[in-house]
Amino acid sequence: MVFIDLNADLGETTAGNPVADDAAMLELVSSANVACGFHAGDPHDISTTLSSAAARGVTIGAHVAYRDIPGFGRRFIDYAPAELSAEILYQIGALDALARAHGTRVSYVKPHGALYNAIVHHDAQAKAVVEGIKAFGGDLPVMLLPGGVAIDHAERAGLRVIREAFADRNYLPDGTLVSRTESHAVLSDPKQVANRVIEIAHTGSLTAVDGSTLRVDAESVCIHGDSPGSVQLARGIVSALSAAEIDIRSFL
Amino acid sequence: MVFIDLNADLGETTAGNPVADDAAMLELVSSANVACGFHAGDPHDISTTLSSAAARGVTIGAHVAYRDIPGFGRRFIDYAPAELSAEILYQIGALDALARAHGTRVSYVKPHGALYNAIVHHDAQAKAVVEGIKAFGGDLPVMLLPGGVAIDHAERAGLRVIREAFADRNYLPDGTLVSRTESHAVLSDPKQVANRVIEIAHTGSLTAVDGSTLRVDAESVCIHGDSPGSVQLARGIVSALSAAEIDIRSFL
Amino acid sequence: MVFIDLNADLGETTAGNPVADDAAMLELVSSANVACGFHAGDPHDISTTLSSAAARGVTIGAHVAYRDIPGFGRRFIDYAPAELSAEILYQIGALDALARAHGTRVSYVKPHGALYNAIVHHDAQAKAVVEGIKAFGGDLPVMLLPGGVAIDHAERAGLRVIREAFADRNYLPDGTLVSRTESHAVLSDPKQVANRVIEIAHTGSLTAVDGSTLRVDAESVCIHGDSPGSVQLARGIVSALSAAEIDIRSFL
Amino acid sequence: MVFIDLNADLGETTAGNPVADDAAMLELVSSANVACGFHAGDPHDISTTLSSAAARGVTIGAHVAYRDIPGFGRRFIDYAPAELSAEILYQIGALDALARAHGTRVSYVKPHGALYNAIVHHDAQAKAVVEGIKAFGGDLPVMLLPGGVAIDHAERAGLRVIREAFADRNYLPDGTLVSRTESHAVLSDPKQVANRVIEIAHTGSLTAVDGSTLRVDAESVCIHGDSPGSVQLARGIVSALSAAEIDIRSFL
Repeated sequence: MVFIDLNADLGETTAGNPVADDAAMLELVSSANVACGFHAGDPHDISTTLSSAAARGVTIGAHVAYRDIPGFGRRFIDYAPAELSAEILYQIGALDALARAHGTRVSYVKPHGALYNAIVHHDAQAKAVVEGIKAFGGDLPVMLLPGGVAIDHAERAGLRVIREAFADRNYLPDGTLVSRTESHAVLSDPKQVANRVIEIAHTGSLTAVDGSTLRVDAESVCIHGDSPGSVQLARGIVSALSAAEIDIRSFL
Repeated sequence: MVFIDLNADLGETTAGNPVADDAAMLELVSSANVACGFHAGDPHDISTTLSSAAARGVTIGAHVAYRDIPGFGRRFIDYAPAELSAEILYQIGALDALARAHGTRVSYVKPHGALYNAIVHHDAQAKAVVEGIKAFGGDLPVMLLPGGVAIDHAERAGLRVIREAFADRNYLPDGTLVSRTESHAVLSDPKQVANRVIEIAHTGSLTAVDGSTLRVDAESVCIHGDSPGSVQLARGIVSALSAAEIDIRSFL
Repeated sequence: MVFIDLNADLGETTAGNPVADDAAMLELVSSANVACGFHAGDPHDISTTLSSAAARGVTIGAHVAYRDIPGFGRRFIDYAPAELSAEILYQIGALDALARAHGTRVSYVKPHGALYNAIVHHDAQAKAVVEGIKAFGGDLPVMLLPGGVAIDHAERAGLRVIREAFADRNYLPDGTLVSRTESHAVLSDPKQVANRVIEIAHTGSLTAVDGSTLRVDAESVCIHGDSPGSVQLARGIVSALSAAEIDIRSFL
Repeated sequence: MVFIDLNADLGETTAGNPVADDAAMLELVSSANVACGFHAGDPHDISTTLSSAAARGVTIGAHVAYRDIPGFGRRFIDYAPAELSAEILYQIGALDALARAHGTRVSYVKPHGALYNAIVHHDAQAKAVVEGIKAFGGDLPVMLLPGGVAIDHAERAGLRVIREAFADRNYLPDGTLVSRTESHAVLSDPKQVANRVIEIAHTGSLTAVDGSTLRVDAESVCIHGDSPGSVQLARGIVSALSAAEIDIRSFL
């Protein structure tokens, strides 16, 4: 049977103010990238999300980030590699402790926001992130954008790489995302988004903005839950996958 | 042979600015209460201290605190119990991950500053701290001031309690410390401080400020390293213990 | 003509994640309690709210708070008075600079959350807040709950006090609010809430939970905009005031 | 008479843990770059430094920084320009309020650390810093490294630029500093450092590392007070200037 992993960014509630509808999204996804308190989330709210994820059997990933609550982790920070490694390790350890208290554990790592984008090309930070993950032990898989230097470092270090695609973003033929400053960066037609996910599940490829076929080999597709509209869109994707007899299932 | 544990607050360097002379103190103590990043310390500087502690075989404790970098954890914060438990668990998990990367681990927990003082009498927070420690698993011992409600909660929960005395603080006959607002709060005579530690090691008691004998049953004595004078004082204690043939050894 | 001031907590967007619908609320209120970055808000998002407030002629208040982003300023912190005064002054100065860049200024101060509640009874912190306001110069009015020690300190220091009532909260006969832990803490019937505001505007009194009449002498009524429902409720209040020929106008 | 301004970074005490010996340095300098709480300093400790500076007639500068307490403002952060402008304005306003409470005021602005270095070449951030300063009003002078794009933006905006030299750093012939990763980055010979300052005061030039003469037109020289050795060095500079009949005086 054909299957695909769906992941979403959760656990970002800070001080009781939710960013996404975690409860709704945990009904839909097979993997949850859970904030570790560095870009968003406080331990108690994170714990609530972990508890729900555990109850639904959703796989937990550590959504590690630059330490930047006011910027939501969306600003590049020029960390020294040793500092970055230590902060990655700190975050995984903290989240794993919270997860274990709910009978689950951290099963993979996904860098967040500006860090996710930086390590596509920033060699020293990419290496530092991999070292932080290795230092935790257990060789956790790492979820990354296809094509970046982080993948090289991860594979060289013996980590499994989960290549990820974005359900609702347009791609350039070289595999990078159309910048959010462009009007056609985001797909909003539910049917088009669902077909994109089905295409990835069946072929490992997607259609880039110029009509060419782009091989992404994605094992997981990222969907969003941070607005009422996005939860609705996510439900549409899940229905379409079900109709297409594609199983939503963790990559583990 | 008679023995005693000496502990000190370390790992509080933040952004490269040291608070104590960690390297000097790690030559003297058998246990290090290492900051977890909530009142002080960042993961990289903490990691440096953990590495030195591991190299010297010093036992690592998680020095858990209220989240209050600007106040150095010295201000009571009225946390809801569930929030506090989650933050304690988060801190232990984070520090343990850093420690394991250096081949050691967190072997006990010591609340810091205002939290340490609050849970002498604040029942809900004392219970929350114990629940956070229990949630980490492995039933880590907890280091506490003799006589408080935290001890009741810890013992009821099956945690080993390490009762602690302060080498350089004057005590009231009821076992509480003379307030730092009093001129005679702190002992500064090196000989008097050393004799205090020797008395505790031999008898489990110390002499309170009114001359009465106070039973503290302390397994560990806290010494300080946050000024040139305090490191000197600490060296004097260690020499005096050696001369008195008292072994400095972790309580583990 | 009868008039009343309506105030709301705004500027709490952090890292682009809104808490309230600031734009909608600025159409309704005459005074905006704008976050200063200590419990919520970052300078850029605060600035956006100040710009809208200035464009609509809404009076700006500094919504000063304990430094507690993760707790949204809802946890009591046991500040030393001198620390608290300095932090109040810092916040007013920062917000006033942002306001002046939009051609407006800070015209009053309203303590937020746990600080607001603490200084009803905490004498040293109440005095410290007043000292922080005085130190800014210009003797800004301060918005407070009727009946607390903060009012005594403010009046003794020569500050104008704006007594405030809550549109949607039930009151005990002694003037304190029914605790949020009680099921009847919050009024949700729009008609009842509107009538409460009309009663205050006409008589300076409201009906407490036991049916007795409570004199509050409120010059301002606090309304909320942090959920779709609350904005709707706020619009209902404004319509009801209009129908009752009560003018919504700043207390200045 | 020949004169020169000496400036130092002060007000960086956080949570009671000092970084520099502010009291000693305020006896020596004519200008104090006072931390604004973003890279270091909390309002109460900052206030203590401002009070001493006011008592000694030392000119106060706002030492504005990226928001990065854990990194001490030493890491580049990729702020959006509008965010950066707002944060600069916020910091100046906050510090000015604290200063006014001590009868003084912010009289200039000096960017700190990574921000100081970034705006030598980062055009958008340089422009944003200048816009933040302009928005405060009063056209505060800005202290900058000679030769960067920030100077162009500042002068175009009508701000007075105070060019600054470093007493204890070696320079490349192009006017940039020898990187701290090089062994000869820092001058430690007190006589050599003092002569450097005298040379600048007399000629506006200094001798670069290759022996060539470098025109810096510095109106102010930065000295350090963050170690016992550096205070000693600073005292030597002051004595040497006195012996050379060079007046230490603010650039104002």
